[in-house]
Amino acid sequence: MNPEQAYQELLQRARERALISSVNSVLGWDQEVNMPPKGAAWRAEQSAYLSGLAHSKATAPEINELLLSVEESDLVDDPLSDVAVNVREWRRGYDRATKLPTEFVEEFARTASLAQHVWAEARAKSDFSLYAPKLSELIELTRRKADYFGYEDQPYDALLDEFEPGEKTENVKRLFEGLRAELVPFLQSIVNAPKQPDFSIVEDRDYPVERQRILGEMASAAYGLDYASARLDVSTHPFSTNFGPGDQRITTRFDPRNFGDSFFSILHETGHALYEQNLPVEFFGTPRGDAVSLGIHESQSRTWENLVGRSRAFWRHFFPITRQMFPQTLADVSLDDFHFAINAVKPGFIRVDADEVTYNLHIMLRFEIEQAIINEDLPVEEIPGVWNELFKAYLGLDVPEDRLGVLQDIHWSFGAIGYFPTYALGNLYGAQFFAQARKDLPDLDASFAAGDFAPLLNWLREHIHQHGMRYRAQALVQVTTGQPLSHKPLMSYLKEKYSKLYELA
Amino acid sequence: MNPEQAYQELLQRARERALISSVNSVLGWDQEVNMPPKGAAWRAEQSAYLSGLAHSKATAPEINELLLSVEESDLVDDPLSDVAVNVREWRRGYDRATKLPTEFVEEFARTASLAQHVWAEARAKSDFSLYAPKLSELIELTRRKADYFGYEDQPYDALLDEFEPGEKTENVKRLFEGLRAELVPFLQSIVNAPKQPDFSIVEDRDYPVERQRILGEMASAAYGLDYASARLDVSTHPFSTNFGPGDQRITTRFDPRNFGDSFFSILHETGHALYEQNLPVEFFGTPRGDAVSLGIHESQSRTWENLVGRSRAFWRHFFPITRQMFPQTLADVSLDDFHFAINAVKPGFIRVDADEVTYNLHIMLRFEIEQAIINEDLPVEEIPGVWNELFKAYLGLDVPEDRLGVLQDIHWSFGAIGYFPTYALGNLYGAQFFAQARKDLPDLDASFAAGDFAPLLNWLREHIHQHGMRYRAQALVQVTTGQPLSHKPLMSYLKEKYSKLYELA
Repeated sequence: MNPEQAYQELLQRARERALISSVNSVLGWDQEVNMPPKGAAWRAEQSAYLSGLAHSKATAPEINELLLSVEESDLVDDPLSDVAVNVREWRRGYDRATKLPTEFVEEFARTASLAQHVWAEARAKSDFSLYAPKLSELIELTRRKADYFGYEDQPYDALLDEFEPGEKTENVKRLFEGLRAELVPFLQSIVNAPKQPDFSIVEDRDYPVERQRILGEMASAAYGLDYASARLDVSTHPFSTNFGPGDQRITTRFDPRNFGDSFFSILHETGHALYEQNLPVEFFGTPRGDAVSLGIHESQSRTWENLVGRSRAFWRHFFPITRQMFPQTLADVSLDDFHFAINAVKPGFIRVDADEVTYNLHIMLRFEIEQAIINEDLPVEEIPGVWNELFKAYLGLDVPEDRLGVLQDIHWSFGAIGYFPTYALGNLYGAQFFAQARKDLPDLDASFAAGDFAPLLNWLREHIHQHGMRYRAQALVQVTTGQPLSHKPLMSYLKEKYSKLYELA
Repeated sequence: MNPEQAYQELLQRARERALISSVNSVLGWDQEVNMPPKGAAWRAEQSAYLSGLAHSKATAPEINELLLSVEESDLVDDPLSDVAVNVREWRRGYDRATKLPTEFVEEFARTASLAQHVWAEARAKSDFSLYAPKLSELIELTRRKADYFGYEDQPYDALLDEFEPGEKTENVKRLFEGLRAELVPFLQSIVNAPKQPDFSIVEDRDYPVERQRILGEMASAAYGLDYASARLDVSTHPFSTNFGPGDQRITTRFDPRNFGDSFFSILHETGHALYEQNLPVEFFGTPRGDAVSLGIHESQSRTWENLVGRSRAFWRHFFPITRQMFPQTLADVSLDDFHFAINAVKPGFIRVDADEVTYNLHIMLRFEIEQAIINEDLPVEEIPGVWNELFKAYLGLDVPEDRLGVLQDIHWSFGAIGYFPTYALGNLYGAQFFAQARKDLPDLDASFAAGDFAPLLNWLREHIHQHGMRYRAQALVQVTTGQPLSHKPLMSYLKEKYSKLYELA
């Protein structure tokens, strides 16, 4: 088979994997949005069957031969060509998928499945000791996973690379340390500021659910989400998923007394869906048409949720509409008060409830602990103590119980160690891209204030979406902004915005 | 491989096919209930991929060898044993699936896909001539399909057998002729009766949609539908589907001025779902745990929709609740008037809107035409004329245009010739089973009037559901009622009920 034929065959196989995994996305979405409780057991069988099918397709030995045929040809001479990008990522995927022995994958899946049940029980009882033995097993398996994958500097690199290809522990450490050095004192000055928002305006007044839904759909449509190829539904935890070209699904949850809980989760998931909707559809199912990484995905969601959705310019347009939607609720509320309320900074225990300023501190703490677990053999029973100590140092609070501390997140229980940093990286990437967009488009605020978000979406399409996986995240930020990733754009943004809101010196 | 091992391997393969086809059911349901319009193209790819996968699994040559191994053993000595039932139906499925050459299957699918578009356009324009050429092609392909399948007496047998295993054209003809001889004059006496219902009570008053939904769910739950393993949603055309153990989905549509449209479609789909929920779950994914046929399935839906749901006893319980639900709308309406209104007999052009008395006449007409097309070479261009002539003879109406006549149904356009008779067979089976249940349970009306439907559901479980495919339909009715299928139980039921309602002599 000549290289051109081999490449066509690889495209065909990629399409088949995309079909299988997109069907599995339908099953996963239905499970969270619709499935009656007694359907869970068979649904697990359906998903496991498709996952097994996808895995066997992804590890077929013929793939290696086909890849070698193209890799040794001149088809990949230009490393940024469509062919070279696809082959680079297929190679990475094939090598990673075949590095883990099947028995290991099965043992990992079994342990993680059990660990999730144990974790849920331990969290309900706020008792870490119930969880510790299973977590130990998972950590041991995760270390073995890192060994299977291999690494140059430290085992944690191998884990990080799974979620954020090409990223290095040392680089993340450097970024986080730079950010933390400025963020911790800045947070203190906010907490101590005499001027504080009345956040009860948005967290404890009447916001009828049907009206919240309409406003959320209006805002996401204004962002550019095409509802002829998208749906908004309700689930316990908001998420977004892609069923394939022309079908993106986002979810939220509604609290009739809390405005922000649904509104900002809709904007967040809209950011994810806009990325998926604007990836080049002609390359769907191949790396060239796929998202770069979890970090870059999160940069899109956080941009639309925070950098745009919590901006003064956005609310100059949307506050009058919001007041029309909730006339009694907001009769006595000014734009200034509303904007301050939705940007209230409140150090708290729970990551998913955290504001823009404190959020990254929650991530840094998890990153520190994950490194210590994987690279330095931190004993499992010492994790809660380290957690609480770091929490005091970063956020200034004493954790009263493990339910509000080390037991709050599901991630470790399904074996996803190395995932958390991508949330903070997303914030950093988002801020750095956004700063560049502001330079390129000086009238951005005026367009937001006029309800026009097309200039920003077009900029993101041109500089990020259209590339698919052409560039790894580290290269993409360099190409787009002329600089490597830095904590400075985010810190500048936070300082400017929150100094004004809190009237800091 | 010994026969026992071969059987275990066949079970494993059946489970895999059940996984694949149940996943395809999820895709199909989502397509009708949720999918945004731009998702259609990729969804078609996903479904086609799974259908192809299922077909290749169903026609694997190893299946033949495995079946032979069991068929030649003493495992199938008792033809009603679980093993023998499964092997009998697997053999049937394998032989049928492998009788059609792959190229033929593809040509059929392609032609049917095009024909559906052409049909939709022809119906919109009410112009049969647009549809005739494609319908000719499909008929020609369907004749070839009958030849591939093979038959003893006439080609139409091969088609009928696809939807109603073991059924014969001559038998259906005999049943339909017996029914029609009594039904046509009976319908005339109803139409000419001086007493007529005020059906505007249920077809042209205010029935707020949310309340319709609640009442529909209450009634289906009272029937025994377990909403911990079921959901009710909205789609253009009501349907029911099975995602696997513990997950049945039914749909309806709501018209805020029409009570019966949603209420009786909910009861109808509940009947289908109750059958699925009460099949023996330990045999799920094998014939022993599967529904007998389309006709038997329809017998369950029509029983709960009509024989129970339009009975006086049912409404003695549900009318007070319904009036509480719609107090203004039904303030001036008595139980008698309401019950008469939901049982109004109105000869009309559209099959899916037909009442209990006229429905089967719509089917007979289609059955006559299908036989003429397949067995007697009726030219396509003569179909509308024959349709209109038979319609006048059976229902006494002149069809004003093809949109209301020969173009109304989608079935032929996807190549489903031989399907329609199962609807009427369902009515006949349902009435014959129900007459037997009444004999076995003399207090049935009293239990309905008390809102207790468990005695009937338990009877259906014991006599029908628990058997899965142990008996073919023709044997099941013999075993359950001691008689072969006859038109008499249905005709007796109709005569007794409608003579009373319309005060016929």
